[in-house]
Order: sequence, then structure tokens, then C-alpha cells
Amino acid sequence: MTGHHRTPVTVVGLGSMGSALAEAFIDAGHRTTVWNRTASKAVPLVSKGAVQAQRIDEAVAASPLIVACLTTYESTIEALEPAAATLKGRALVSLNSGSPAGARQMAEWATGHGARYLDGAIKNVPSAVGAEDTLLYYGGDNTVFDEFTSTLRVLGGDTVYLGADADLAALYEMAVGGTLLPALVGFFQGAAAVQARGLEVASMVRFSIKWFEMINSVLPVFAEEIDRGDYSKPASSVSLFLAGAAHDEELGKEANLDMEWHKPFHDLLKRAVEAGYGDHSISALTEILKNPAPTT
Amino acid sequence: MTGHHRTPVTVVGLGSMGSALAEAFIDAGHRTTVWNRTASKAVPLVSKGAVQAQRIDEAVAASPLIVACLTTYESTIEALEPAAATLKGRALVSLNSGSPAGARQMAEWATGHGARYLDGAIKNVPSAVGAEDTLLYYGGDNTVFDEFTSTLRVLGGDTVYLGADADLAALYEMAVGGTLLPALVGFFQGAAAVQARGLEVASMVRFSIKWFEMINSVLPVFAEEIDRGDYSKPASSVSLFLAGAAHDEELGKEANLDMEWHKPFHDLLKRAVEAGYGDHSISALTEILKNPAPTT
Repeated sequence: MTGHHRTPVTVVGLGSMGSALAEAFIDAGHRTTVWNRTASKAVPLVSKGAVQAQRIDEAVAASPLIVACLTTYESTIEALEPAAATLKGRALVSLNSGSPAGARQMAEWATGHGARYLDGAIKNVPSAVGAEDTLLYYGGDNTVFDEFTSTLRVLGGDTVYLGADADLAALYEMAVGGTLLPALVGFFQGAAAVQARGLEVASMVRFSIKWFEMINSVLPVFAEEIDRGDYSKPASSVSLFLAGAAHDEELGKEANLDMEWHKPFHDLLKRAVEAGYGDHSISALTEILKNPAPTT
Repeated sequence: MTGHHRTPVTVVGLGSMGSALAEAFIDAGHRTTVWNRTASKAVPLVSKGAVQAQRIDEAVAASPLIVACLTTYESTIEALEPAAATLKGRALVSLNSGSPAGARQMAEWATGHGARYLDGAIKNVPSAVGAEDTLLYYGGDNTVFDEFTSTLRVLGGDTVYLGADADLAALYEMAVGGTLLPALVGFFQGAAAVQARGLEVASMVRFSIKWFEMINSVLPVFAEEIDRGDYSKPASSVSLFLAGAAHDEELGKEANLDMEWHKPFHDLLKRAVEAGYGDHSISALTEILKNPAPTT
């Protein structure tokens, strides 16, 4: 690929993330065709140089590479369905969220119409699109990844190919992303406790950031314990966490907070102790999570 | 204070963290007296130059600054009780975990015996003690902090005084630390999902680290929303998270995982929607956490 011959790209779906993707392609000098069900979403992009397709089949026909960023796999297929015949021979990259099963269905649908399919995930916020260290990973047709690597890298400098299975990005997205809501609720609870004391939440941000950096520093150790299945040399034991759980209740009482969401965590800790993991690493909870309790 | 006249320090409680604290003082050239209920824990420190006190009152008498690192405030008071008369006029710094209420009781006990009391927390693992960017924060008697700042900084370069209230470190420790268990359980669940697919957990660590860095990048925004009490300009809305919750169930089914611990999070999201926060920022969950549901 020569420096001045940039691949034309079509972006389907112009929510905040889709719009950020399209803008990154425009900024990098790609002829960028855009389509959205609600056409008015394209206006800001057209003013920046995008070509707005009136129909989805025109959008697909405009480029060898189509990047779809809709809410779900279902909505992606629904949007592309009228252009199915036009997909043949083109590269389709999907960056929506969804389950591994959804990714496999999407791949089947796309390849069934003769498209080469690559399934991706962007692990960041729209404002991070295009940054050198922004991470995107992909699974699926390696010919798409190889042919369009430099184009995909426009969206983020840390662009990774996971393997040939089309559901790998969805798998990792859910495996990695599963920390978000629990971590945030933990932060919001802390924010409420600090506020209850008449202090600004802003005063705890610097400490919380350091805390997540500490968590990051121990993840490789936990991963190794889990991969080896050996939890017997704990840096922090299940029992230590269970002892700490008692303090939670005191904080909740002190600040009059809803601590109900802690109960399942305490139950997991207790089940781990019952299973003989009390003096083992907290990462032994992984084994407990693998054994669903019978639901009622 | 001159460079070669280092404050003698006594460390009470020689668990993994207490031992790391004592070692940092020894390495920095402080005459370091150590005491632990189980005396054998002192052996490795004595071989590095620590002086082992046989009795707790001897330990306290040996230094103007006593650093206690036991499991709880209760065990700290219990250990120091026989030396209560010796505490008069000395500086006592406690670095155990506990609730704000526990910190206030500890302060009352210590000042009741004539000690100057500073309550601290170390937000890291023992191996991080002494590093330039390791964070410790303190609340309580400012004369202790001012007089011994350079000595306390031996334990971590990022040493912060929060204010005169003795429970501030405990408050922030619980507010900040509340993300740990939920974040780790999220990670362990992801680890189990990756393993169920026959992949190494180590393969997701790099992605998880980036994900926590992304979370860190949005915390200042959330803090500002909460401080202003204005959730109306969301980067990520409550409804968006509720839609994502459906995917969780699919992942759980696919990897046969215990997803019971997700339910309270989904309940919080639903309560936020019912309260009119559906199109508001996810940080509006803070308001829901402030309103405990009646427990049965």
C-alpha cells in the first residue's frame, strides 16, 4: 500500500462511537462514506468531508471495507440486510458489543452472503478513538486483518489480531469488560460515603486511580495462579477478604448506604472457605464462579 | 532534622505488611525496634539489624515514634494495652485496616493515655512499601505528621496528610478500597470464561490492564457529575449499561458460570431507571446507593 492511496471506507451506524470512527478515517485522509438510519446524524460528518449515502446498498457499494458500529449484532444484520447482495467480496468489520454466540451468528450471516468477516471490539470511549495507545482487537478472517491493518490502525495504535475464530473479540470483550460495572459501583459507593462526610468526591479520585493501578499490578500474579490452578501461595487470602467484609457493613451503617449488592460477594467468599480455599489466594474465587449454585 | 540523625522507630505487629514497614525503616538507617505477639516473626528482621523487644512496654519505650500494623483496631489496642502508661508523650501511628468509627475509638484510647495519635492507611501491597510512588495517607494529630514526615516518607514517597480528624484515612481507605473485591470478581469471572474456551488467562491480562486504565480516565468526569449532582450529560447512560446486562447472561450460559452476583447490579440499574435516571449518566447510581431499600 502506498502512502497516498488510502482505502475508501464505509461506516455504518453513526452513534457517538460510529461517528468517532468515521471522523478518524476522514482525518486520516480516507474517502469515507457514511450511513445511518436517522440520516441527520451524518450532518456533522458531511461538513468534515464524509460522503453520505442515502441507501444502505449504496453505502456498502462505495467501499471495499465496511465498518459497522451499531448497538447489537441483531441491529447490524437488520441494517445491512437490504444490502446483502452487495456484500459479496467485500470486507465487513463489526465493532458493536455482543456475546460470542452473537458474533458467530453474525459471521455466519456475513460469510453466507459472500463477505469476508472480521469481528472487533474497541475497548475505550469515543474520545479515545485514533489515539496511539487505544486498544482494538479482532477475530475472524485474517485476510481482512492483513489487507486492512494500516486502515484499522487509524482507529487506535494498539490493534491486535486474536485469531481466526470470529467470536474471539466478543469473548475477550465480555471477559475483560465484566469488571466495569462492579468497579464503578464500588467507586460510586465510595463517592457516596465521602459525600456523606461533607467532602468532595473529587478529593478521592487521585487515590482511586492509584488503587486501580495497584489492582493492575497484581493481575499478572492472579492470572498465573489461575492458569496453574495453584492458589496455595496467597498474597491476599480468601479469609483476609472475608474479614474485610465486616468493615463494609460498618461503613454502610455510618454513611447510611445501600450495601445489599455486597451480599453475593460475601456469599462467594463463604463458599470459597467452605470449599477449603480459606487460606488460599483470593483468585481461587475463579473456581467457585465455575460452579454455579443451583438457582431457584 | 539532620541527614544522619534518624528517628528511632518501633514497629508493632510483624505480619507481611508490618515486616515490610520495619524493613523499610532498617534500610533507611533508622534504629528499628520490633515487637510481635509471636516472637519468632521478628527473626528475619533481627538478622537485618532490628532490635527485638521482649515486652510491648519495652518496645514502646524504645522510640518516640511507634508504628502499629495489626489486623484491626481492636487487636492494636489489645496489643498496646500493657504499654498504655508508656505511651504518654509519644507519637503513635496506626496503619491497620478498619472503619472510621474504629479509628475514632482508637484515637480516643490513644489520646486518653497521653499519646499523640495519627491514623494512616497504606494503599498498596507489602512489596510496594518504600517505593517512590507508593501512597499512604494520614488523618489526626498534625504535630505527628509534621514532626515525622520525612520518617513516614520512608514507607512511600506519596505521603499525604488529609486533615485533623483521626478517621479520615479509614474513611478514604474504605471509600477507595471498595472497588477491589467487585473488580477482582469481575476479573475472575472473565478468567473463567477465557479458560472455558481453552485459552490462557494470561492472554487477557494486558487487555484488562488497559481496561482499568480506561476506567481511571473517566473517574474525574464521574466525580464532577456527582459533586455537581448533575447527571444529565452522560458519556455512558444507565440504559446503556442495562442493555449490556443482557449480554452478561449470555456469556454466563456460554461458559457455564455463576452469574448470581450480577443480580444486585441489575437491580440497581433498574431502580435508577425507575427513579428517572435512564438517560442520565451511570454515575447517577450514586444517588440510588444513598437510598437503602428497606431490608427484610
